[in-house]
Amino acid sequence: MKRLSYIAPLACLMLVVPAYAQFTKSGDAVEYRQGVFTVMSHHFGLISRALKGEIPFKTEEVSANANLVARLAKLPWGAFPVGSTTSDSHAKPEIWKKADAFKELAERLQTQTDKLAAVAKDGDASAVKAAFGDVAKTCKECHDAFRTKHE
Amino acid sequence: MKRLSYIAPLACLMLVVPAYAQFTKSGDAVEYRQGVFTVMSHHFGLISRALKGEIPFKTEEVSANANLVARLAKLPWGAFPVGSTTSDSHAKPEIWKKADAFKELAERLQTQTDKLAAVAKDGDASAVKAAFGDVAKTCKECHDAFRTKHE
Repeated sequence: MKRLSYIAPLACLMLVVPAYAQFTKSGDAVEYRQGVFTVMSHHFGLISRALKGEIPFKTEEVSANANLVARLAKLPWGAFPVGSTTSDSHAKPEIWKKADAFKELAERLQTQTDKLAAVAKDGDASAVKAAFGDVAKTCKECHDAFRTKHE
Repeated sequence: MKRLSYIAPLACLMLVVPAYAQFTKSGDAVEYRQGVFTVMSHHFGLISRALKGEIPFKTEEVSANANLVARLAKLPWGAFPVGSTTSDSHAKPEIWKKADAFKELAERLQTQTDKLAAVAKDGDASAVKAAFGDVAKTCKECHDAFRTKHE
């Protein structure tokens, strides 16, 4: 019976799930969403390094990385079928227990990464830095609530 | 001394390596490139399923998947620093011993996935099928030569 409590928030979550990103096996879903987050994190990190001056701030590269981050940010949400987890997964059960809050963060990330991609085109480092900071806060908020810290 | 034989082909390989995709740790490189291939494979698989009629062939979705595959196909080649491997990696040492052949396949994949993305826009399933087949052959050729089969 406990699972029934997931149905209403899940129905909301389904609204942001693209039809093409369905998974039947937990292992496949975990591998896919971890792949997305790994690649997204790497390219987000390259924007961070450019902002810190560790690598040159080249508008074309920062913009390409921001576009890729924004594209990837749309992908993983269909790869969280109810209870999908493995020993490799960092997913907390709160993802499905508090599906509305998870969905809100998923949507916020997409809005904010779209904004990051939009400002990155102009090459204004301070605008990129502000948009980057908003995204980073959302990453942290979601990880704190919905991701375990084990390696 | 054996490693020196890698240097000339590596210099060629570097030409296709984007400046933003450098890795200092093998584990990070393996995780990143596996992430790219996992996500690429999933979206390539969705095109396959649409071609087989397992899911509806919707031009907009097939095109979005093909664009994503083409974008991802540009990413992993900078994540193969010489000898970078871990127990999770499927990379054969031939990647660095036969770097010219690996580079040729990497470039062919990018050309062919760009073509797949271009034809997918028009929604002509037979053209998509032909372009898809070319990409699939290149995947297989590269996996046969450069990827171990262990799980």
